[in-house]
Amino acid sequence: MWPAALASSELQAAIAGATHYEQRMLRLFGIPESTIATTLREAERSVEGLDRLEVTTCLRRGEVEVVVRHEPESEPAYERLAALIAERHPRALFSTDGSLVDDQVAELVQGLRLAVAESCTGGLMAARLTERAGASAYFVAGLVTYSDAAKAALLGVDASLIERHGAVSPEVADAMALGALERAQADVSVAITGVAGPGGGSEAKPVGYVCLSVVRADGEPLTTLARDLRLPGDRAEIRDRSTTMGMHLLRALLRGEDAPL
Amino acid sequence: MWPAALASSELQAAIAGATHYEQRMLRLFGIPESTIATTLREAERSVEGLDRLEVTTCLRRGEVEVVVRHEPESEPAYERLAALIAERHPRALFSTDGSLVDDQVAELVQGLRLAVAESCTGGLMAARLTERAGASAYFVAGLVTYSDAAKAALLGVDASLIERHGAVSPEVADAMALGALERAQADVSVAITGVAGPGGGSEAKPVGYVCLSVVRADGEPLTTLARDLRLPGDRAEIRDRSTTMGMHLLRALLRGEDAPL
Repeated sequence: MWPAALASSELQAAIAGATHYEQRMLRLFGIPESTIATTLREAERSVEGLDRLEVTTCLRRGEVEVVVRHEPESEPAYERLAALIAERHPRALFSTDGSLVDDQVAELVQGLRLAVAESCTGGLMAARLTERAGASAYFVAGLVTYSDAAKAALLGVDASLIERHGAVSPEVADAMALGALERAQADVSVAITGVAGPGGGSEAKPVGYVCLSVVRADGEPLTTLARDLRLPGDRAEIRDRSTTMGMHLLRALLRGEDAPL
Repeated sequence: MWPAALASSELQAAIAGATHYEQRMLRLFGIPESTIATTLREAERSVEGLDRLEVTTCLRRGEVEVVVRHEPESEPAYERLAALIAERHPRALFSTDGSLVDDQVAELVQGLRLAVAESCTGGLMAARLTERAGASAYFVAGLVTYSDAAKAALLGVDASLIERHGAVSPEVADAMALGALERAQADVSVAITGVAGPGGGSEAKPVGYVCLSVVRADGEPLTTLARDLRLPGDRAEIRDRSTTMGMHLLRALLRGEDAPL
């Protein structure tokens, strides 16, 4: 019955007349979903043809995805919307072609040797960077230094630095990144140290406080980007979002840009 | 309307008469789902009361889960089924109380210092071992040595050993485990090196060929367990199953047992 129905001239005509939809994807990092919502409300007033676009937003791993579906003739309206978003959020908008930050980092790091130093993320950053086939072309090594002793022994982090500033501090993140660079003989490194919780937080350094440092040493002078920030969520979310932040810092450093947030 | 319905004597009577179900979970590692299916068919003939148990099996991360739901009065039938499975698969059955292998390893490793050396899993083993809050009590460090140079520089693996046997070999897995033990000053270590694919395989060492070694050094003599095996699946599955195998080798070593497969 089904094959007969498929072959019927009525269905064939319906299929021929079916609307073809284009789907576009914009990805932003470093702004909350509510900020995009505000921009989209503004677009309702200023973007001609917006009513013919189907726009949805989704928060995923700390990034905002804007998915736009439209019929081919509404491409100009999509272009106007994309231009408005790019104008309003120039630093946050990092992908207009469907690529993930992981794809972009994998592309940017070609020809370089990449190393990782992790504490709270416990290997997730290295795992994420080696997820793609071909990662061995650039990924050299990861050092998961969970204990203070391991930070000293494996990364050469000065014990007195940890004593003065604490294992979760911008100073120790920098030292970890430099240690990874040197010990793994890499050109680029990313370091993450933070309080993933649920225990271990303090008033000054609560659960979700994470320090990141990325360093590039293949030219002169050494270039670095660093951030310390407070991430929301439970232990798994904080660990996951720390790696997303690490990917974006790495992307910015490799493109010679400033940090996205 | 809904609150009124909930308060009605008819619904209250129905709720009071509702059957309460018990749920039990058996977990096995190292046998295919088809082997459990054979045992369950045998149970149909030999286990009295089996028809009053609702039995489902599920393959998850390389482990087989047997979930049994039953009314309280059928507990003896469940006990007979569990006894049959334990008798048929004494080495594969590792959990009868709902615990995961991760829970058991976290329990067994208390008081010890644990280190990890990884190649193909790229940090996933360290990430899995640090997933639980409180992991810092035993997890010391992970070394993700992706390149041959990193295996030599960070784990002290003899370059000639890699040259003779290849980076994916039982010999290099052993050397990685010993290197992690020494460099991270740990009591127990687990090492994984393999061909995660999709490229990089050869006839002798195809995609899915993985070598693991676990070593315990807190007593004399040093105790070790090692396995090299062929895992099915794509890159992500091979990486994930390698960590599951690592967890089970670690569990066996810590319990003083032989490898489960």
